[in-house]
Amino acid sequence: MSVTAAAGFAAAGVSAGIRPSGRPDVALVRAVGPAVGCAMWTRNRVQAAPVTVSRRHLELAEPQAVVVNAGVANAATGLPGEVDARTTAERVAERLGLRPEEVVVLSTGVIGPRLPMEKLLAGVDAGAEALSADGGNAAAEAILTTDNGPKTAVVAGDGLTVGGMAKGAGMIHPSLATMLAVVTTDYPLPSGVEADRYLRPAVERTFNRISVDGDCSTNDAVVLLAPRGEPTGGRGREAAFAEALESVCRDLARQIVADGEGATVVLEIGVSGAASPAEADAIARRVATSPLVKTAAFGHDPNWGRVLAAAGSAPWNGGFADLDPDRLSVAFDGTAVFRSGAPTGLVPELGGAACRIDLDLGLGEGEASYLASDLSTDYVRLNAEYTT
Amino acid sequence: MSVTAAAGFAAAGVSAGIRPSGRPDVALVRAVGPAVGCAMWTRNRVQAAPVTVSRRHLELAEPQAVVVNAGVANAATGLPGEVDARTTAERVAERLGLRPEEVVVLSTGVIGPRLPMEKLLAGVDAGAEALSADGGNAAAEAILTTDNGPKTAVVAGDGLTVGGMAKGAGMIHPSLATMLAVVTTDYPLPSGVEADRYLRPAVERTFNRISVDGDCSTNDAVVLLAPRGEPTGGRGREAAFAEALESVCRDLARQIVADGEGATVVLEIGVSGAASPAEADAIARRVATSPLVKTAAFGHDPNWGRVLAAAGSAPWNGGFADLDPDRLSVAFDGTAVFRSGAPTGLVPELGGAACRIDLDLGLGEGEASYLASDLSTDYVRLNAEYTT
Repeated sequence: MSVTAAAGFAAAGVSAGIRPSGRPDVALVRAVGPAVGCAMWTRNRVQAAPVTVSRRHLELAEPQAVVVNAGVANAATGLPGEVDARTTAERVAERLGLRPEEVVVLSTGVIGPRLPMEKLLAGVDAGAEALSADGGNAAAEAILTTDNGPKTAVVAGDGLTVGGMAKGAGMIHPSLATMLAVVTTDYPLPSGVEADRYLRPAVERTFNRISVDGDCSTNDAVVLLAPRGEPTGGRGREAAFAEALESVCRDLARQIVADGEGATVVLEIGVSGAASPAEADAIARRVATSPLVKTAAFGHDPNWGRVLAAAGSAPWNGGFADLDPDRLSVAFDGTAVFRSGAPTGLVPELGGAACRIDLDLGLGEGEASYLASDLSTDYVRLNAEYTT
Repeated sequence: MSVTAAAGFAAAGVSAGIRPSGRPDVALVRAVGPAVGCAMWTRNRVQAAPVTVSRRHLELAEPQAVVVNAGVANAATGLPGEVDARTTAERVAERLGLRPEEVVVLSTGVIGPRLPMEKLLAGVDAGAEALSADGGNAAAEAILTTDNGPKTAVVAGDGLTVGGMAKGAGMIHPSLATMLAVVTTDYPLPSGVEADRYLRPAVERTFNRISVDGDCSTNDAVVLLAPRGEPTGGRGREAAFAEALESVCRDLARQIVADGEGATVVLEIGVSGAASPAEADAIARRVATSPLVKTAAFGHDPNWGRVLAAAGSAPWNGGFADLDPDRLSVAFDGTAVFRSGAPTGLVPELGGAACRIDLDLGLGEGEASYLASDLSTDYVRLNAEYTT
């Protein structure tokens, strides 16, 4: 039930005709009672209009509703695009009895074109009518573009529920601005600042540790909504919430990787024994984005030479992250292929839908993990054959 | 005539049987009179044995000869690999009447296996016999692995000659350690330190500004040899030498990109108006390595949305390089597609073997350029289908 799994939220997904296929393309999520919330945004220097507008809204008020449209990203649209995003928030606010600043606007789709505002605003009206406590799955459908299917996750237990929906990087379109996620919970929080304290580390360890192709979109956003109130249940419940939130984010992130463009294999990169956590992260990221490692994964090839070459050239601090091949060990799916500077001679059979690569640097305590999709001929075909 | 275009050098290329195909695989280059020289090496933390050994040699003596073998990279081979590289230098020294420290050893080929030393040393003997002032092209053939053809360049004029050979990134093999270049000149220089003063900026602007797949090998090296002496011809000749050297490096670098694995298009990325040269470089590099930009190039798609998204997320100084979309202009093959924050609506026809993308950031004076190959289905096929 995605964003309506937690009590206190209503959602809807409707077809507004923004996507030519006629598939659902406008989603609404609202908190039934007073809510708090926060968001994390793409760090891209080119930020879509809804990102600019919603950031400002979050500075002015606690968010009570989220509106998402698919099909048009409203990116690289300048000031007119900002007016469109603001107008969308105003219409949502009007229909739901909120202030515009209480509405977060998200868009995903093609970069460049303006939003078809008449269709979108009619969609907002229809969505507001359709809002229901059962609407989570409909909303999850309505935020997709070229994803192969909806991405939802729910964790319930310990007296609380966290649920979410996401859309991923099925960038068949020429310049799709991609990753979005909305997560809700019934765990009360006093403020957006407090919500941010939970969301930030969860996103750092999940959505910020995935790579389909290393490209970072102009529209990426993760939004968290929670009922406004004092947390109950003490330290134990606090920890349970943090864990449930991270778990939902991890689940959604993995679904995005598994449904990456042309993806056939999910690569799980684990780095341990690095000189520092930051260097572990740099090395994991470098291995996860190496085209040679990713094509080898597509070919089910336990190619430790490419892993070594990638790990040894991980940008960090103006140079490369610390690595000593004589202390390095590499394993594919648990089978050691390189140990303390020398090949073991073992050649593991790879063939599943997941491939785990573990690197132990033998230098310190730094650890990091990363999820990545492989690089397939379909990835290239999808991204090359659709021409503007 | 590659490395023997400049007077004062002899070269040879022979078949030693290291490559199973029986193609030439050992090259020798030597200075006929006393020479000076320098080298620039891969910054990868995983460095092949010949890199480790040759760096040490260059600290001890001016280089008088270079030996290159293709087929086996002698990388990730530990101490035994270093002994092999050192033994190779000793044999060259013995045959040419040099000290081992005066020999630079380069290897290219598969990562992991030991060198077949008996074959290699017999090849050194044969190469030493075959050395001649006409041997440049034979040497250029003998350093190739899966390149489609030899890469040589010569600039002559202004009373001096610079010639060179290179091998590139035809990484069909599972884990090939790749880029090598040897450049010679008849322009006399007093020392390796002085040679380095010329080589470093030339390499920074050429070999360090190309990308086939963003991967950086364990064996990459560029070596420059010049006769030992005082430069003649004054400032004008100095400038002519610097220009000729950079020109030869640029020519070889472009040949490497054009013959990149699966390459069908050479992407020329030009960035101007950046806040600083370093940020211009970061942005050019990011655009040149973006899989989405590279697949669009393969599809002849003037996809400015992808260029924007890549340029806006160029890692720099712990964040992203400065960019303001409202001041940004982007052109494909000279046709402006995005100007000062808005699309122009123009759609240039792309179709040639080269595609030029210019970004003007409108922020400052920083400039940089980059060459990259496109990302094709053949790239993926070549790198996925050859399994260990």
